[in-house]
Amino acid sequence: MDVVNPISLDNEFPLPEDDRGPFQEETMNSQNGLIKPALPGGFQDFGPREMLARERMLRAIERIYRSFGFVPLQTSIGQRREVLTGGKPASMRMWDLRVDASRDTTDEAQRVTARFDLTVPLARYVAENMGSIRFPFRRFESGDVFRGESPQKGRYCEFRQFDADIVGAPTGPADAEIMLCMTSVMRALGIERFLIKVNDRKVLNGFAARVGFEPGSDQAAALLRVMDKVDKIGLDGVLAELAGKAASDEGSFAFGPEQLEAVRGFMTLTDGLADNAQRLARLKGYFAEGGVGAEGVTELETIASLLSAGGMPSDRWTVDPSIARGLGYYTGPVFETVLLDAPKFGSVYSGGRFDDLVARFTGMSLPAVGASVGVDRLFAALQELKAVSATEPDVDAFIIRMDEALMPEYFALAAELRANGLRAEIGMSHQDMSTKAQMATALDRRAPFILFLGGNEIAAGTVQVKDTATRRQTQVPRTALAQELLTRLDRTA
Amino acid sequence: MDVVNPISLDNEFPLPEDDRGPFQEETMNSQNGLIKPALPGGFQDFGPREMLARERMLRAIERIYRSFGFVPLQTSIGQRREVLTGGKPASMRMWDLRVDASRDTTDEAQRVTARFDLTVPLARYVAENMGSIRFPFRRFESGDVFRGESPQKGRYCEFRQFDADIVGAPTGPADAEIMLCMTSVMRALGIERFLIKVNDRKVLNGFAARVGFEPGSDQAAALLRVMDKVDKIGLDGVLAELAGKAASDEGSFAFGPEQLEAVRGFMTLTDGLADNAQRLARLKGYFAEGGVGAEGVTELETIASLLSAGGMPSDRWTVDPSIARGLGYYTGPVFETVLLDAPKFGSVYSGGRFDDLVARFTGMSLPAVGASVGVDRLFAALQELKAVSATEPDVDAFIIRMDEALMPEYFALAAELRANGLRAEIGMSHQDMSTKAQMATALDRRAPFILFLGGNEIAAGTVQVKDTATRRQTQVPRTALAQELLTRLDRTA
Repeated sequence: MDVVNPISLDNEFPLPEDDRGPFQEETMNSQNGLIKPALPGGFQDFGPREMLARERMLRAIERIYRSFGFVPLQTSIGQRREVLTGGKPASMRMWDLRVDASRDTTDEAQRVTARFDLTVPLARYVAENMGSIRFPFRRFESGDVFRGESPQKGRYCEFRQFDADIVGAPTGPADAEIMLCMTSVMRALGIERFLIKVNDRKVLNGFAARVGFEPGSDQAAALLRVMDKVDKIGLDGVLAELAGKAASDEGSFAFGPEQLEAVRGFMTLTDGLADNAQRLARLKGYFAEGGVGAEGVTELETIASLLSAGGMPSDRWTVDPSIARGLGYYTGPVFETVLLDAPKFGSVYSGGRFDDLVARFTGMSLPAVGASVGVDRLFAALQELKAVSATEPDVDAFIIRMDEALMPEYFALAAELRANGLRAEIGMSHQDMSTKAQMATALDRRAPFILFLGGNEIAAGTVQVKDTATRRQTQVPRTALAQELLTRLDRTA
Repeated sequence: MDVVNPISLDNEFPLPEDDRGPFQEETMNSQNGLIKPALPGGFQDFGPREMLARERMLRAIERIYRSFGFVPLQTSIGQRREVLTGGKPASMRMWDLRVDASRDTTDEAQRVTARFDLTVPLARYVAENMGSIRFPFRRFESGDVFRGESPQKGRYCEFRQFDADIVGAPTGPADAEIMLCMTSVMRALGIERFLIKVNDRKVLNGFAARVGFEPGSDQAAALLRVMDKVDKIGLDGVLAELAGKAASDEGSFAFGPEQLEAVRGFMTLTDGLADNAQRLARLKGYFAEGGVGAEGVTELETIASLLSAGGMPSDRWTVDPSIARGLGYYTGPVFETVLLDAPKFGSVYSGGRFDDLVARFTGMSLPAVGASVGVDRLFAALQELKAVSATEPDVDAFIIRMDEALMPEYFALAAELRANGLRAEIGMSHQDMSTKAQMATALDRRAPFILFLGGNEIAAGTVQVKDTATRRQTQVPRTALAQELLTRLDRTA
């Protein structure tokens, strides 16, 4: 059984900064025979300052994931295409990996495609290793994923996700743990003003049934896909599309006034209600006749009680019936996280329950739930909020090359410092090797100490230490140097 | 100017374990309509136990790289093809990244290809950011690279490298620092029995000139390519190939007896000599008439003196004129590292100087040198040497779900423990939820503590703590629990 809906990913992971597409930019050789050092549009590098801040962010997330008992997994970027599509027409543009034309790659079953998320590769790994995994399997994974994004829409073709999932635990406690984990991650990153929006695919399916669409049908999927655009085009935009404006794109239906009113009523059902208890009560009333919608509400009620027990502040999450999530594989609760001070970045941390994903390999459902940090997007948002920066030094000590002939002395000094846990760099530029230029390099490295060692110092058994913060310069006996620097840095070897 | 030689990569990164190729394995849908949960041949996942050990290894390497003043860079996997090839015919099989057939990708300049190493993307980044980089640029990068490896040869198509490079520092000190860094990395990984083999492309070019080949010519490149196989096919194999056996594959020459004797003489030139001083003296004598070969020897002499100053034990490195390295972009010293107790893994840590790589973008040479850990290969070797393992617990405390109705209590307990820096998991399997099954899960996690909390304990304000090492079970007051566990673990919150 495989009930994955062909909902598109058009609303996944927009990144507002980049408007290059993979095939838009001019990247011809220049006339002088040199290669233009450009990336393909939609791809990006991260320089050292960004990376230092980014890695600090990733480690904070990992620390929280570990505290919830998640363990690391690394899945292959290259996957068989049918693993990713489930053998159905692809609902999004993916990147195939093809060896040079000399290799035959026409066989569809042999087609290699880059993963578009970390969830499908997880499901594949679980299916292949069913017998040796002790469930629940709590794994985290950080890695790049690839999507054939459109040039115009300002999205990246290669971007990083950082996921945590619990496979083999039914709805209720596991979903609540994922939400608590998301909350802990946001707080560990220094963010307090965020809101996790929760809905349930069963609630949405219950609503789709109300307007006459079979859950899981193409029509229901098209309806959810349009509703999912509410963040971008607003409620009126959603209603306009459903009225027929985009019917040719989205499906073979056009809503009449009564159905449009039903959509408006459902999407605004919980507007203005003060707390989640009220919102859940309103939803419960909406599905008073039972069915799949009522099941969804019951799931959300269970989660609500556990969130409160786990210490989730009640104003950090909200039940929101308008949340749909783009990915087709969700089957139960779905989550989105918005930054209240940077809403334009959209959801930075999203997920949901996908009980049927492993079934495409095994034929049997396996309960699973998780969430994924959109690393690049969250990082961009944190940069805008000035909540991340990397101001640490690259090295602790920069050794000025005063005399080429003394290079062996500088090597010995660097080795001593490094053996004591200090980071050390020796001046060795290919350009200006003046002391002034080397000191500028030391300041570029934000080195707290610049070390001078010439003939006089060697004769005296000392090193001149310049403190770049105080600008004071002192003589330190060579034998006491490492300890002295460690003490000044408030560290021990 | 771009003098990159079209030397093939046929000898790069063989991995002895895997004999699947990307297009070899049968990966058809099975008859029941299910998708086979297989990876494409040549691709791999890493499960949690491996990952924990692997990440410990990566962090040890990073710590050393940081101590040498390297800072992180992350380059895009997707690169423009001509950036990777330099606009020349590719010397190896690469993986193109192509969006679904609906996208036009016929324009060669727009062709996106997955990086095959981390060095060319570094050169591209440097060329694009020349104006804002303060040289020398010391960067490290860990990431996956992709090669279209042959099915039969037991190599991976996607594998990880971990590089450190110094861009903007001429030969001498920077090369010695790279070798000292390689030494520190090996020792940080607990390996003492390794040997770094060093040669210089100028020495090889000097030798090629001796047998009548212009340095950088196709013939010289073909000669080096055959010599590079010595590890696999032995000296006699090399001589047999050069005698004409494989002349149709390797070039348009066949060596006569005199040339073959010259090859044998050169490749065994330093055999049996006791130390590097003797080996360098022998090489110096070989190039007594000067020229490019003598230049190479002088470079190696400078490096030798700095290695000794930097504390490199003299028996950890050797000058070896038979070392060629596969990659075409090397211009000066080249390095390989073999594990003396696991030589079959070949070189696990290799590199060299590539002064001309940035020139394909800028037209100007920029001195650069670096080395790359073959992470997967080194990890496989360390596993075989039993030098890595991950035996740490996945969690500190496993909370048994004794009573479904008490789940909110378990959530509150887990939140308390996590707030105190402890890793906690609550039993929530989809299968057997008996206490016995949950305890088996706790043991699978290697949890040092299993916690029991039922009605009696709640009434008494206590938790039952089972120590899985001693098997002793004690009552601990709830309010003192986190502190008690931290104390027993010898940690503080």
